[in-house]
Amino acid sequence: MINTQTEYNFLSQQAKSTPPSLIRAILKAMQDDEIISFAGGMPNPISFPEKELSVSMQNVVKKFGSKVFQYSITAGLLELREYIADRYNRKFNLGINAENIIITTGSQQALDLLAKVLIDKNDNILIEKPGYLGAIQAFSQYQPTFHPITLENDGMNINELNNLLSNRKIKFGYVVPNFQNPTGISYSKEKRDKLYDIIKKNNFLLIEDDPYGELRFEGEPLPYIAAGDTQNSVLLGSFSKTITPGMRLGYMITKNDDIRIAVNTAKEAADLHTNIFAQYVIWDYLINNDFDAHIQKIKNLYKIQSTAMIEAIKEFFPQNIKYTIPQGGMFLWVTLPEGLSSMKLFDIAIKNKVAFVPGDPFYVAEKNVNALRLNYTNASPETIKTGIKRLGEILKNYTLM
Amino acid sequence: MINTQTEYNFLSQQAKSTPPSLIRAILKAMQDDEIISFAGGMPNPISFPEKELSVSMQNVVKKFGSKVFQYSITAGLLELREYIADRYNRKFNLGINAENIIITTGSQQALDLLAKVLIDKNDNILIEKPGYLGAIQAFSQYQPTFHPITLENDGMNINELNNLLSNRKIKFGYVVPNFQNPTGISYSKEKRDKLYDIIKKNNFLLIEDDPYGELRFEGEPLPYIAAGDTQNSVLLGSFSKTITPGMRLGYMITKNDDIRIAVNTAKEAADLHTNIFAQYVIWDYLINNDFDAHIQKIKNLYKIQSTAMIEAIKEFFPQNIKYTIPQGGMFLWVTLPEGLSSMKLFDIAIKNKVAFVPGDPFYVAEKNVNALRLNYTNASPETIKTGIKRLGEILKNYTLM
Repeated sequence: MINTQTEYNFLSQQAKSTPPSLIRAILKAMQDDEIISFAGGMPNPISFPEKELSVSMQNVVKKFGSKVFQYSITAGLLELREYIADRYNRKFNLGINAENIIITTGSQQALDLLAKVLIDKNDNILIEKPGYLGAIQAFSQYQPTFHPITLENDGMNINELNNLLSNRKIKFGYVVPNFQNPTGISYSKEKRDKLYDIIKKNNFLLIEDDPYGELRFEGEPLPYIAAGDTQNSVLLGSFSKTITPGMRLGYMITKNDDIRIAVNTAKEAADLHTNIFAQYVIWDYLINNDFDAHIQKIKNLYKIQSTAMIEAIKEFFPQNIKYTIPQGGMFLWVTLPEGLSSMKLFDIAIKNKVAFVPGDPFYVAEKNVNALRLNYTNASPETIKTGIKRLGEILKNYTLM
Repeated sequence: MINTQTEYNFLSQQAKSTPPSLIRAILKAMQDDEIISFAGGMPNPISFPEKELSVSMQNVVKKFGSKVFQYSITAGLLELREYIADRYNRKFNLGINAENIIITTGSQQALDLLAKVLIDKNDNILIEKPGYLGAIQAFSQYQPTFHPITLENDGMNINELNNLLSNRKIKFGYVVPNFQNPTGISYSKEKRDKLYDIIKKNNFLLIEDDPYGELRFEGEPLPYIAAGDTQNSVLLGSFSKTITPGMRLGYMITKNDDIRIAVNTAKEAADLHTNIFAQYVIWDYLINNDFDAHIQKIKNLYKIQSTAMIEAIKEFFPQNIKYTIPQGGMFLWVTLPEGLSSMKLFDIAIKNKVAFVPGDPFYVAEKNVNALRLNYTNASPETIKTGIKRLGEILKNYTLM
């Protein structure tokens, strides 16, 4: 039987139903140097220790020769995993070792691999509302049923969560406990404790994604929610916000061996292993420099930048606009009066040379939401003031419409 | 409703049914320095231009500063994609440009992403028999129906292929046209032409995976089977065998925009983008060094090593053992008399301090196959002779059993 039909679309059903991400389209809409952009999520280049990394590059080639260029093991460089285990044990008393860690190609890869090894179609999973769009993208590929739980200033709304759990079996929950993306909020100690009790009682898995935890510039660090737990916890971390995102180095920490082994097998099929040269370089950097002093420099800068943004918001935004005040990380979240669309505001803002990310991509179902994300890490205090002033003027007209 | 059951296995059905790969278990069984191993698939360190890469590292940090450490675009560094397009156009007249290329985290990632965006459960796909185990692993995750077509010395058995196509619609075929893994064979010009006609007539997609094509040490280069075709072709390439596998840099070339866009979207969810520092370094290396002269050095060495292995096989193997004679690449394929298991031979070989990869992982269904893969790129001619002698002695006893 000869197929005489011309059929050019070879895509799987899943690929056919996956649109390119909205946020990339948004970022593309801004190829204009005059636009002041609070849209991206890029760390300030101050977080890249360029000189020290250059030294480490030469060190590892000299010390380890061809090993830094050869194929390596899927779990990642042992010495780097030992460093990570030791740091988390010292800071958070997790009781982990190198065997509990897999190095991933950015923590985005951990989200992708976890989605693959955990989600069966229609599995119930908990996410934050609004939630991190990279996680929503990764999870969506495996068609779970999302249950977004409203995020308050101190974490998930517990009543909403308990109501949901009263008649549903949940596979896992996904949270960003510190300086959440997109809202900038952090979970209080009380909410962390409550959430842990709920996880244990209902026996679901908690994925804590913590790319920003090191960047606390106000208040005291808090313990993780479930990290260190033997079966119900996966913790994700990253060097993207503290050393370099371009090198794509993240990691997954779990004492659940089933999950670790499954992720390792999936990673083997995904990319064999993460760039081993980059792993050697970051490890050499970490053991030969004062990492905490470096992080302190980043925190000092981000505190100045976030303060500049908050001050400008107070000065230029109408009174009926609400916003979060982050104690660390890279973002804050602005809520417009009900009924106003941040997508429509975006179009006006771009024409007036200021940009942000509209709230929509951080929600699973809602469209034209009345909230938006602002990033403050990639502009000077002066530029932040100018940009927020522009946005304030637009908002004054927009909220009167 | 409180879940009072303890249920610790959160894995998806798919993950539960995916065993850790056999080959990793095999490689782990060999932690003994006295073992001469022909099991791995590692390039010789001569292929790593260490000094030149070190220079390029310094160059790109100096020239591009924070750009080499910052987040970047999913498709990959434009300059590197332009270099690749230009090289393939010069060598193979493909008529491609940078827009047809996506940089991947090793070509293994391309296999994983293509599996994701192409395969619906039970889709019919063609593979080689025996076939590359990394591809079988990647495709298996999406539960296609595999149709392995017997590989002969000059490519797939065309009659077998035509019989299969007479009553089945195929989504795609996957081939390694040059110095195939695991057999070392290459497709003849005649088979390439026939296969292309079959693809067009039956309108399926051909994925040509070509990590070894540059490493031809005998005979004349041949054109690709379908590469350059507007809709039915995806070509994969890699710098792993010519510069460094540790940096994990591969690429996908296709003029099929549907597939390219779908892979780009899937890659965004998989790891955002490939290590951008590595992309800058490899690009700087390529434009500032004589890449072809470097490749010539690798080819000269591999020719010596493959010749040493073939000569040793002639000298030490029993007459009833068949083997392929590769014109390039890294492997050759040994076939034992029918009924002899290479898995059982492996256990004996390990005790006698010599190792190879048994044939089983290169097949979808067959177990205890009577064939095995030998790698010759990672041992000196003397060591190759010693190892093959050991294996020959075992074979003499084994084939008499």
